[in-house]
Formats: sequence, structure tokens, C-alpha cells
Amino acid sequence: MTYELYYWPGIQGRGEFVRLALEEAGASYRDLALVPEAKRGGAAAVVKVLNARSNRRPPFAPPILKAGRQFIAQTPNILLYLGGHLPLAPRDEAGKLWTHQLQLTISDLYLEIFSTHHPLGDAYGYEEQKSAAKRRTKDFLSTRLPKFLGYFERVLERNRARGPWLVGTRLSYADLSMAQVIAGLRYAFPTATGKALGSRPRLRSLYDRVFERPRIALYAASGRRLAFNNEDLFRHYPELDR
Amino acid sequence: MTYELYYWPGIQGRGEFVRLALEEAGASYRDLALVPEAKRGGAAAVVKVLNARSNRRPPFAPPILKAGRQFIAQTPNILLYLGGHLPLAPRDEAGKLWTHQLQLTISDLYLEIFSTHHPLGDAYGYEEQKSAAKRRTKDFLSTRLPKFLGYFERVLERNRARGPWLVGTRLSYADLSMAQVIAGLRYAFPTATGKALGSRPRLRSLYDRVFERPRIALYAASGRRLAFNNEDLFRHYPELDR
Repeated sequence: MTYELYYWPGIQGRGEFVRLALEEAGASYRDLALVPEAKRGGAAAVVKVLNARSNRRPPFAPPILKAGRQFIAQTPNILLYLGGHLPLAPRDEAGKLWTHQLQLTISDLYLEIFSTHHPLGDAYGYEEQKSAAKRRTKDFLSTRLPKFLGYFERVLERNRARGPWLVGTRLSYADLSMAQVIAGLRYAFPTATGKALGSRPRLRSLYDRVFERPRIALYAASGRRLAFNNEDLFRHYPELDR
Repeated sequence: MTYELYYWPGIQGRGEFVRLALEEAGASYRDLALVPEAKRGGAAAVVKVLNARSNRRPPFAPPILKAGRQFIAQTPNILLYLGGHLPLAPRDEAGKLWTHQLQLTISDLYLEIFSTHHPLGDAYGYEEQKSAAKRRTKDFLSTRLPKFLGYFERVLERNRARGPWLVGTRLSYADLSMAQVIAGLRYAFPTATGKALGSRPRLRSLYDRVFERPRIALYAASGRRLAFNNEDLFRHYPELDR
């Protein structure tokens, strides 16, 4: 089956968590964000899926994965689906739930990262909410980030397999997402992230191991993986990185 | 099996989404929030589970459901699990994913509701972030809330079963959570919610149908369902309800 991925062009965003899973698994997929609007791709393709009146199970927002005739939305839900069809999650029920639980906690983390620069939400530009962003980021970097990273370091430490991965002996989609969040953190808060990761060798190793996977390395070098930028989920404002 | 639910005492919070599912299914469970600390319940019980070094798969935060020897965390993940074991979700894979997708969107909604009164996060009291809360709430009530409620009304409308529920012909855990969010919205923003629901008859009906379910009505009358209060996820500040 060839999957189709619908997501906004020009940013990695939440779509990137899905892309990394598809790439690592070597799945066949068509990324509509890379298709020009003239060829029925781009933002227009996303809007079309969102507005399709014929869809009895409409998505609220992208990313959206089309698998056969099914449209699946919500990043962790897409990964739950992919984990059941590609070798990206354990097969047993307890292992599936544990991987998904980690993914939902990773999702909480990247939502908190988004909130550092947009605590008042999307409706106001960054400049309009800069002082709120500074206050929120201060707490995020001093309290929340160490709490999250400490947690994931502990998960790696407690994994009986004693390998580089969060769940058992094999890489899962949660590892890919964790590495992506670390990449985003390093872009957004290079100084604070460097400090926070100083005492978390297992997370640093997870990041390295993910981005040296042959398929992930190929993807990163392909030009299809966009650069981080300040329209994206992770944004770099030097005044926040303290 | 008798489940155990670990959550903070004194509030409904995220634990309530799990309680409604357990109550509707008539499941046997022990709610540790209602057990005094002297009898190994209360907040101390939550902290104990969070800090248990013996748990190879530690939870990040409550609610936490103990099912046999397994500790399951993250509200939507707990409901995914319960949906697979109790008659609260479809049996087919597409139906399961669709129900979970709706639950994750409901989860996004209640997180946005929390952000109306705490846009800068938990670290600052409400009084310390009141002006940020006013700005965030203004956008929430004018843009985000109608977008979410319009979406869920559309989901009800497009459900081929033409009954009161979000998925197919039978009540699912997503219906219970949706009704709980409507209850919370009515507490937090009575004026704005009244207006927003005026043009959404299907959501009003879903709410009524959920809270008149015999087991839910019994639970609501039992004294075990706590009243909403301003330490909780949904909070009522009259100055925000405009």
C-alpha cells in the first residue's frame, strides 16, 4: 500500500513525526506537502481533505494519513496505526500501550515547547505576546524541561533491555519522536538544551542512534527534510534561551 | 478484575474521564482518591506509584489505571485500553482508531480550556497571569470554541447511524468525555457556552443522553462525583466569561 500524507508545506511541524516513522520503516508514501498545488498537492490538498463533505469521519486538523480508503488524524493516533502495521512497535498489547503512553507524553512535551513562544495561542503574533512568552519559557526551562527529560532518561535507564531504546530491544516510533523533539529543542534553545542534556547521556545517545540509522540519514540528506524555521513548532528566539 | 484508579483527591480533573468510563461500564474499581491516606489512599498513593522504583514502565503523571499488574497512564491511552476490554468502543480497527482520534481531539479541547485560565502554566497563580488569561480566553471563546464545537456537531451529523452518539449506533468513551467537557464548559463559561451551544442541538442532546444514562445518573447522585471547583481543570472566573 502507498500511504498519502497531508500536512502544511514549508514546515516540519507535527507531520515530521509521521514522516520519520514512514522513512524508518521504508514505507511507500506520497507526501502531498512536496507536491505543487498545480498538481493537486500543497496546502490546497490539506484544505480539500479537511472540507470533504463525503468523509463521514472528518479530521479536525492535519497531519492526516490516508491508508487505503481510511483517513487517520491526530499524530499519536497515526503512529499507533503505523505501529500496528510496520515494525515500529511491540506486538503485544501491554507493549503497544506503553509505547503509545510514551508517545502521548512526548506529545505533551512538544505542545509545551510550542507554548513557550505562543502561550496565548496562534491568534497573536510572537511580538504581541513576547512578555508572556518570556515568563512561560522561564518556567519551562527551569522546571518543566528537566522534569520531562529526567523522566525519559529514567525510562531508558529502567528498560531491562539495556539498549539505546525506550521500549524493549528494538527501535519504536516513540524513539523517533523523542529524537525529533531533541533536535527541535537544540534548535530552539541551544544553550539551555545543552545544559539539560549534559546529565542525560542516554537521551543524547538515543538521538545519535536515531539520526545515524541508514534510512533516517538518507532522508535527512535527501533535501526532503526541511530545515527548522520560525514558522514552525520549534522556534529559535535568542531572548528566550536563558 | 477490580481496577485501581490513582488520581489527585479533591478535583474531577482528568481522572473524571476515566471514572465516567468505568461507571458507565459497571466495572469494578477502587478509586484511591476516595480512600484516606491513613488507609494508603489519597495523594500519597499517587506519589507512591509515581516514585515506585520497581516499575520498569513508570508513568509521568496521573491519572493512572492499575489493571492486573499493569500501570497504564495518559487519559486517552487508559480509555483506549478500557475501550478494548469494556463495551465502550467499536471492535473493528478503523472504529477503534476513529474513536481514539475523537478522544485526542477532545483532549486538545480540554487542554485549551485549561490554558484559558493558566496560559503561562501551573507555575504562576491565576492572579499572577490574569491579563494573559483574559487575552487567551478572548480568542478561545471567539474562535477556538466555535471551531471545536462546530467540528463535533458535524461529526454527530455525519454519523450514518443518525443516533445521539459520535461513533456508530452505540455509546463510546468519546461520548462520555464529550459530555464531561460540555459540563465543564457550562461551569466555566455559562454565558459563552450557552450561546455557543444554542446552534448545536446534537451536542446538547448528547450531553442530556449521557447524564441520563442510569449508571451515570446513579454515579452523579452518589456523592462520589465531586463538584467542579476553582482548583480544577475547568474553572469559573466571571471576568473571563464574555
